[in-house]
Amino acid sequence: MNKNIRRELSAVARVDREKLNGHKPLLIWLTGLSGSGKSTLSYHLERILFDRGLCAYVLDGDNMRHGLCSDLDFSAQARTENIRRVGEVAKILLDAGLVTISSFISPVREDREKVRDALGEDAFVEIFCSCPIETCEARDVKGLYQKAREGLIPEFTGISSPYEAPLNPALILDTSVLSLDECLTKILDVLRQRGLPV
Amino acid sequence: MNKNIRRELSAVARVDREKLNGHKPLLIWLTGLSGSGKSTLSYHLERILFDRGLCAYVLDGDNMRHGLCSDLDFSAQARTENIRRVGEVAKILLDAGLVTISSFISPVREDREKVRDALGEDAFVEIFCSCPIETCEARDVKGLYQKAREGLIPEFTGISSPYEAPLNPALILDTSVLSLDECLTKILDVLRQRGLPV
Repeated sequence: MNKNIRRELSAVARVDREKLNGHKPLLIWLTGLSGSGKSTLSYHLERILFDRGLCAYVLDGDNMRHGLCSDLDFSAQARTENIRRVGEVAKILLDAGLVTISSFISPVREDREKVRDALGEDAFVEIFCSCPIETCEARDVKGLYQKAREGLIPEFTGISSPYEAPLNPALILDTSVLSLDECLTKILDVLRQRGLPV
Repeated sequence: MNKNIRRELSAVARVDREKLNGHKPLLIWLTGLSGSGKSTLSYHLERILFDRGLCAYVLDGDNMRHGLCSDLDFSAQARTENIRRVGEVAKILLDAGLVTISSFISPVREDREKVRDALGEDAFVEIFCSCPIETCEARDVKGLYQKAREGLIPEFTGISSPYEAPLNPALILDTSVLSLDECLTKILDVLRQRGLPV
């Protein structure tokens, strides 16, 4: 880091923002295979939190790759950089007071743990969408599994690139068994335990 | 861009967020030499907006370089990438409903214009801190001008790297002449004209 850079501190303290918003910031990190239900859960969760008056926002893998990470490919190195940037943006969003829902395959355990360590345990809730790959592939909402099987997408998580499941997530959701509503209820229970007014 | 990526749309519309927050999002972009008063103005402005109930947040050059842009140096190419990333983060913050104050030297006109074009004229307010370099150098709050003169900092804006002033900023503030309060009053006038309830 350049030693000619000073860290500027905001004159608005975190506690001020919590008072204005009526809740603390939190990063809800959904991880799991493509097709495991992360985006669906994220946007439904955002809507519920928003309707209950919370400042909530979804950081989505697909959206990020259109913008901030449009210069990155899907190599192992670029995926790590992608998650690093997501973590940094999440940090900014939390600093701004938001409950942030991140929806990324994020296959590498160490990458996720770096985000958790940077934010602190208290600000990070890891949710594992543990849907079996057979179900994800059968859903194949985006047609990506078929392309991966045909060799058209290299390094596709679960097919030609590994997925490392969380060792100690706050919640495991098997979306092949649970309904959307059941998943959301379980997430809200966790968020309530973590101090969010939901 | 990878054609296997779809753009996910948030179920919470911009208008919903405006209703919850009581104001539209806006990017207030301060540009000018090191020492021209950008950070001081930004944090005072953030405090004022916050105290009036607006969701406001400062994106600061120094802070960003500790996090998201910690992999970038100060070469021309890296500075352009720095501003690109700032623009993308600002886009996310605006999407989340925040009034965002960005405080960056941002010496390249084209880099700033790309941010404006990506967000749209309505969402972007450019403020030029036009303090003469002699005054910035006399202030030298961070001791950077001295180091630049000694050749310890290469490509330092105003000394060994160019600064391109905005052609048509919403506001020009000569911080060598105007007081902090005068600058803030002028900024608030512009924000009021742009529809913010301040």
